[in-house]
Amino acid sequence: MIAEYLKEKRELIDTQLSVVLPDRTIEPAVIHEAMYYSVFAGGKRLRPVLVMAVGETLGVDESYLIEPACAIECIHTYSLIHDDLPCIDNDDLRRGKPTSHKVFGEAIAVLAGDALLTWAFHILACCKAAQEKPHTGVKIIECVSKAVSTYGMVGGQVLDISYEKKKVSAKEIMKMEFMKTANLIQASVLVPALIADVTEEWYRAIGIYGKNIGLAFQIVDDLLDIKGSKENMGKATQKDIMAEKATLPSLVGYKAALKRARHYSKTAQDAVVVCDKKNLLAEIAEFLIQRTY
Amino acid sequence: MIAEYLKEKRELIDTQLSVVLPDRTIEPAVIHEAMYYSVFAGGKRLRPVLVMAVGETLGVDESYLIEPACAIECIHTYSLIHDDLPCIDNDDLRRGKPTSHKVFGEAIAVLAGDALLTWAFHILACCKAAQEKPHTGVKIIECVSKAVSTYGMVGGQVLDISYEKKKVSAKEIMKMEFMKTANLIQASVLVPALIADVTEEWYRAIGIYGKNIGLAFQIVDDLLDIKGSKENMGKATQKDIMAEKATLPSLVGYKAALKRARHYSKTAQDAVVVCDKKNLLAEIAEFLIQRTY
Repeated sequence: MIAEYLKEKRELIDTQLSVVLPDRTIEPAVIHEAMYYSVFAGGKRLRPVLVMAVGETLGVDESYLIEPACAIECIHTYSLIHDDLPCIDNDDLRRGKPTSHKVFGEAIAVLAGDALLTWAFHILACCKAAQEKPHTGVKIIECVSKAVSTYGMVGGQVLDISYEKKKVSAKEIMKMEFMKTANLIQASVLVPALIADVTEEWYRAIGIYGKNIGLAFQIVDDLLDIKGSKENMGKATQKDIMAEKATLPSLVGYKAALKRARHYSKTAQDAVVVCDKKNLLAEIAEFLIQRTY
Repeated sequence: MIAEYLKEKRELIDTQLSVVLPDRTIEPAVIHEAMYYSVFAGGKRLRPVLVMAVGETLGVDESYLIEPACAIECIHTYSLIHDDLPCIDNDDLRRGKPTSHKVFGEAIAVLAGDALLTWAFHILACCKAAQEKPHTGVKIIECVSKAVSTYGMVGGQVLDISYEKKKVSAKEIMKMEFMKTANLIQASVLVPALIADVTEEWYRAIGIYGKNIGLAFQIVDDLLDIKGSKENMGKATQKDIMAEKATLPSLVGYKAALKRARHYSKTAQDAVVVCDKKNLLAEIAEFLIQRTY
């Protein structure tokens, strides 16, 4: 059962996250508290689970995967903290809990994001894979830093801001979603491929898988924003509509967007059919479009 | 002449910075404009010059130094952009120019800082030293990320915030200054030492040099904040006093603080006497306490 698998990996990741983060008692404690607070505010752990699942599929020992998985979750968390800031999305609630700046104030929220991003690269440089195979370590850091740079996640966030209250096309929306969300999801599947040292052909295939589940995931997120209840999502829904933020569903309608998400999920599954012996990656791709939270 | 040397290196670094930063015409252009704006807002380039000078002293070819030097300057610039934000120091002016959030708005300023930090790690992963000797590349990233983490620069910034309007001791101030400023300056001298693959003994000595010139530099900065005119400094001076920020001069007085800075500079020079054959590092340490801007 895929749900059982995801739960098991999530628990493993949660345990390791509390190991790799600086202890909350270390001074200045407030920043470590803030880092911990947001990392443990109830995320789905999709990205680190993908690191584990792709690594497992490629025969990599778990001990080489768990640290990069945690680093990527730290980066994801940093992006959420900064996105939620009053000057960006101005969100008070995230995953049912007050956002970082609501609890710790804006200054500490900015710095907690900075600290998580910084610490993620420290984790990557110190991880077992990087220490034993520095060549792989350098490649991992190259891959992840590019994915969350202005060529990827940060660039997507800038596009997102520039699209507010502006007429944009479905193509522009998908470009933004790819940069903002799919890039880091893609990096999450490419990192274990680098550790497994797969052929170029497989690396490309896994990249296609990552890109497409990333896009499917984001569309489903936007669909849930429309349909999901506030209780299920743990954040204010229909917020995109209120903020006049363009999303694929708002442009092409619910049904057409869902169809597009299914198409991306199928493309993802097809891409990895040669290496996905356990059918694990296909099941995850399927799960992502059927989720209700 | 040390002033001539510093000028020459500064020009070299400026040229390379415009190469390693994403082109300003790449979309979304606004974020690349913002990155460029702050990087080229007239910094002294102390940190990258130190990378070059220590590397030169240790016999490292310039081509291995210039990229890490630029990466460190990007990190320094990110820290300034975030420090200047309304929710942190709320500075409108930096080096005589409007700060990032004044020009681009707060959202882009936050993201430009994020982007520079991220891109710095990308530069480090892709630099000649890391590509040719990945083992060194991993060590460099480990060193730099730790220096700007909550154990270093970000932690120091948190302490700085927590010290405002609070009674603190000279010892506490120096701990904060070490974390906030000296850590990255220390990393700037340790990175070339890693590239040169020096002995543990020299590595320690160079670390002592970095720590001590970092502390001397910060005290002189605080002294200039008191004595310097607004024109010379290009930013509002006496700001620390108005913000009731504790600095070493505000606690122990101008003369005692200057004496302390001289002591740190001397300690720095003594530490590297064995490897500083050209006397370059000593001259820089001397220059730092005699500067008027």
